[in-house]
Amino acid sequence: MAKTQIIAEPAVPQMTVRGEFATPRELLFRAFTDPELLVQWLGPRELTLTIGHLDLRHGGTWRYTSSDADGNEYSFRGVFHGTPSLDGIVQTFEFEGTPCHVCLETTTFTDHGDTTALTQSTVFQSAANRDAALLSGMADGINESMDRLEELLARVVPVS
Amino acid sequence: MAKTQIIAEPAVPQMTVRGEFATPRELLFRAFTDPELLVQWLGPRELTLTIGHLDLRHGGTWRYTSSDADGNEYSFRGVFHGTPSLDGIVQTFEFEGTPCHVCLETTTFTDHGDTTALTQSTVFQSAANRDAALLSGMADGINESMDRLEELLARVVPVS
Repeated sequence: MAKTQIIAEPAVPQMTVRGEFATPRELLFRAFTDPELLVQWLGPRELTLTIGHLDLRHGGTWRYTSSDADGNEYSFRGVFHGTPSLDGIVQTFEFEGTPCHVCLETTTFTDHGDTTALTQSTVFQSAANRDAALLSGMADGINESMDRLEELLARVVPVS
Repeated sequence: MAKTQIIAEPAVPQMTVRGEFATPRELLFRAFTDPELLVQWLGPRELTLTIGHLDLRHGGTWRYTSSDADGNEYSFRGVFHGTPSLDGIVQTFEFEGTPCHVCLETTTFTDHGDTTALTQSTVFQSAANRDAALLSGMADGINESMDRLEELLARVVPVS
């Protein structure tokens, strides 16, 4: 995979993450929507991800919790807008530690033949919120997640 | 009321609406959350607004429909993030005619003594989506709504 790109223009309340994976679109989509796969790549390696619920339909909600070795827990939640499909996933995203700091995330999977391009565009309520998220180490977390996702995809054989 | 300000910087997926109303914060909040008041100001004058439901709590959904004299209907829907309160309202906003074009709206009411400042910041999935919304006549609709809101507030006597 080419290195993950994280694009964050100054004073714009948006962040775009781009990656390219040597995997079919269907499998990349599955990695985002199958709880058994999701827990294997989302978030930093030193945290354990637990999916509380993931209701993959328009208006459905999701919640997951990341735990560290000391038992500290960090929970996140959101709502799907439109039913997730190969055409994309639109969802809100909220860290329960900062309630009402909500993001809106749009994820698309584009077939490039031998590879699938991932684009994840997130808009924040303000550029200040975006900058605070980046300063909290979000970029490192994204880069690590993308590395783990690539490793997972190499382990999973697509069902043809 | 000072003229409504609509701020939309080039290439930024955000729009901010500012107004100032000679009314207490509690009454301005009520105008945004009481269906009987909402239908009297939201949207253009020539359309009739009907509230389908408005579930004012975290995760609650809302839906309303605007109808014209010919019976054409335009429906909108969204989800509240955090329970609406005097501290503000955070919600998603989606025109059902363009599903999955979702906005995230943050509304705040700031007490300025004799007046209350309204700030409504909306982030779009992209600057292109924001521009398309503005080109569709959104600015006229906002200005008309703000005028109607001011007229409504002049009619309603706050309960002290």
